[in-house]
Amino acid sequence: MKIDIEKLKKIVGKENVSDDIADLYVYASDASVHHAMPTAIVRPQTIEQVQKIMRYANSSKTPIIARGAGSGTSGHTVPIDGGIILDMKKMNRILDIRPEDMLVKVEPGVVDDDLNRALKPMGLFYPPAPASSRIATIGGEIAANASGVRSVKYGATRDYVYGMKVVLANGDLVNLGSNTRVHSSGYQLERLIVGSEGTLGIVVEATMGIRPIPKFRCLAVANFDKLEDAGNAISDIISSGCEPSMLELMDKIGIVAVNKAMNLGLKEVGAIILFEADGNVKEAVDFEIEKMKKICKKYNGKDIKKSYDLAERTKLFSGRKKLFASLSRYKEGIICTDLADDMGVPNSKIAEAAEKIHEIAERNNVIMAVYGHCGSGVIHTKIMLDSKKKSQWEDAEKVIDELYDYIHSVGGVTSAEHGIGLSKAPPWKKARSDIIPVMRKVKRALDPNNILNPHKIMDAPDNWVQATNLRYKVG
Amino acid sequence: MKIDIEKLKKIVGKENVSDDIADLYVYASDASVHHAMPTAIVRPQTIEQVQKIMRYANSSKTPIIARGAGSGTSGHTVPIDGGIILDMKKMNRILDIRPEDMLVKVEPGVVDDDLNRALKPMGLFYPPAPASSRIATIGGEIAANASGVRSVKYGATRDYVYGMKVVLANGDLVNLGSNTRVHSSGYQLERLIVGSEGTLGIVVEATMGIRPIPKFRCLAVANFDKLEDAGNAISDIISSGCEPSMLELMDKIGIVAVNKAMNLGLKEVGAIILFEADGNVKEAVDFEIEKMKKICKKYNGKDIKKSYDLAERTKLFSGRKKLFASLSRYKEGIICTDLADDMGVPNSKIAEAAEKIHEIAERNNVIMAVYGHCGSGVIHTKIMLDSKKKSQWEDAEKVIDELYDYIHSVGGVTSAEHGIGLSKAPPWKKARSDIIPVMRKVKRALDPNNILNPHKIMDAPDNWVQATNLRYKVG
Repeated sequence: MKIDIEKLKKIVGKENVSDDIADLYVYASDASVHHAMPTAIVRPQTIEQVQKIMRYANSSKTPIIARGAGSGTSGHTVPIDGGIILDMKKMNRILDIRPEDMLVKVEPGVVDDDLNRALKPMGLFYPPAPASSRIATIGGEIAANASGVRSVKYGATRDYVYGMKVVLANGDLVNLGSNTRVHSSGYQLERLIVGSEGTLGIVVEATMGIRPIPKFRCLAVANFDKLEDAGNAISDIISSGCEPSMLELMDKIGIVAVNKAMNLGLKEVGAIILFEADGNVKEAVDFEIEKMKKICKKYNGKDIKKSYDLAERTKLFSGRKKLFASLSRYKEGIICTDLADDMGVPNSKIAEAAEKIHEIAERNNVIMAVYGHCGSGVIHTKIMLDSKKKSQWEDAEKVIDELYDYIHSVGGVTSAEHGIGLSKAPPWKKARSDIIPVMRKVKRALDPNNILNPHKIMDAPDNWVQATNLRYKVG
Repeated sequence: MKIDIEKLKKIVGKENVSDDIADLYVYASDASVHHAMPTAIVRPQTIEQVQKIMRYANSSKTPIIARGAGSGTSGHTVPIDGGIILDMKKMNRILDIRPEDMLVKVEPGVVDDDLNRALKPMGLFYPPAPASSRIATIGGEIAANASGVRSVKYGATRDYVYGMKVVLANGDLVNLGSNTRVHSSGYQLERLIVGSEGTLGIVVEATMGIRPIPKFRCLAVANFDKLEDAGNAISDIISSGCEPSMLELMDKIGIVAVNKAMNLGLKEVGAIILFEADGNVKEAVDFEIEKMKKICKKYNGKDIKKSYDLAERTKLFSGRKKLFASLSRYKEGIICTDLADDMGVPNSKIAEAAEKIHEIAERNNVIMAVYGHCGSGVIHTKIMLDSKKKSQWEDAEKVIDELYDYIHSVGGVTSAEHGIGLSKAPPWKKARSDIIPVMRKVKRALDPNNILNPHKIMDAPDNWVQATNLRYKVG
């Protein structure tokens, strides 16, 4: 692909453009299994620069892939057809904090934890809290409709998007949404942009909701001999009108992995549930925790511990927090891939789905832990395999095929919080043939030259193992 | 306009089609000032019937306007170019209530209060609560992105939409969104449909979030001599991290009107604030109410009363509840129109905006009360005028022009919760020229023959007083 590097240097300054092979290599991967070299990296600092870059890309039909931290798990920012990576991390100013409206205005490169650090002295926080918040940018979180451990109470990124400035494929700048907490003034295009994975426009500013930090948080854990009991407890906790601020599951594989990696000495039971409540009044937090404890006991939950203390809560949560990082320690010679990482199911199906995932994995020679934000139906898994063997990648493909057929058959979703990208496109496309034409119509209307993150979601290859490169040495 | 009535009768049965003049007259108006006769009324009962009607309309290029209760305030369902009114009220089944996921699946014709009546015995509720909930349908609420007194805590309709089935202009049925509380699986088209006022597709089924009913609700009222003090108290309540479940304002005109209409004997002060907190634990509700009381006192709020008791709360709220209905009693010979009814402003601008609204109204010979869900920046007003005088409608136009120029200049929105329709299109189009081309592209992509509620929002006439009929006898 031919790109006019000099033209790009004139727009953003030469220090903000690179086609050096080492730089390109760094930007060829994200947190997924995929790898593809971009043609150039460009780091804009202003909205006007983004507009000029887009006008150039649109007239030259150059693919343009916006990227935040590169922490996406499904290959969203891997440029499988080359093109310009638009690194948004230099647009990282917090522009306005308005406590009187519980709104904050930011540039897209602001890191989630940095935003929360700025809000904390004011007694405020930005709730979505994906696990990658230490590095993830608000722009990337918008692109993926990110969420995390608090979604059961606080929802996902889409619930916090009030307004945004977006540069369209043709370089036009548009103001979407509002500066107010509610609006019914024209199409809610700001919420269409959320979760569109950089395929409809480049978010250059966002007005997001914030919340007061609750004064009290209490975390509790319960052990269950049977995964099924834990699943039923989760359904019952939600049905009973409890309002957990976190409701997490860890299966035995996860427990064993964190014990191996961190020497935590957790009881290697069938499953652990972690549940939290928060609020400004201790009596109310106690009320929620006690109600959930009672339900856990009803389903044979035991060894229940709870704490309000930050240090102790951190300790109780440490296994869950480091679960992903610990998984590759579960067994010698395997790596932990970000494949099949975030399906969603109705809560009544959690226990059944967990058993099914174990069964499919075992039958296909890979290992899969089951954990996640089960209070909102989010099941995290990862496929663990020997990355050097080509056959293991084929095993992974078989697992993905069978697993998502099951997930979709029980009314679940392919991705609950990370997005479709490349990795999840084959099963998602198979299940959602009805909306693909509609999505393509919207995409074509807003990006007729198909320059914005092409070949993703509905336009991704049907078989990424054959069609794209892996970032592992295989065979 | 020529419509094949026999064909429509074959689709839905002859009892469900009408082109009788009396029927057409009833459907020619909604709660707005506008009036235009449809060509036929059709009442589908199944998704398949909606699909067939759409295929007929698309091939014959017949306008098709979906309608719920007809409680829209801005002319959304007034068919200014004739066509088929698709009356959705017969599709009114509650299909599934799933407490374990806090989700409910409904047909679009379900009335909001009916849904809440079905949920109540299970300890659940559907929160958006527009003032018209007694008659408004879920489909209509989705079309307008409706919200109400509880939006300050519970948000708007868009925050409760998880999945939907939509019939597109070409008759295709698509499943949007998910059966789970979070999803990142393709474009969030379900949230694009919310607030699109029937211009992008017909919602034939919706999966909506529900919540547990809080055990305690406490309502308080405070009087303020100065409107400015009340406005500042509202900003401060939100800034201070209070979590009201309601935070309402009434100005003196509103107070005088309800006193006249209902003989309530309210003190005719500059403004009243009503504030509520809810929760499962009384200590927590008390905590919120006391914090808000203290802030009201800081801004010279007085005569503060509070109650947990339903009967007493109903009494305290009765003035606010009947405010709209009472307004036309404010002065002999005037009527209360639904014009300029729901602007939104940042909370820091509430007091200033209220004063400005009074000033503009007075200077232009109309009367405007200021009230609303000011905790989320929603300012309700109504233009009260002598409907028989043509000059008064011209006065109203002048007010609208000047008022919205001001609202937009302070970062406000044309419509916070009722939608743009016809009445609000002129000021909205003037302010939002940047997004009109984007909306048109999306509209054209999904409805190339422009059959779905044409001539509304971005395609509405620039001057409805000249371009459309009023439902009043003028001159």
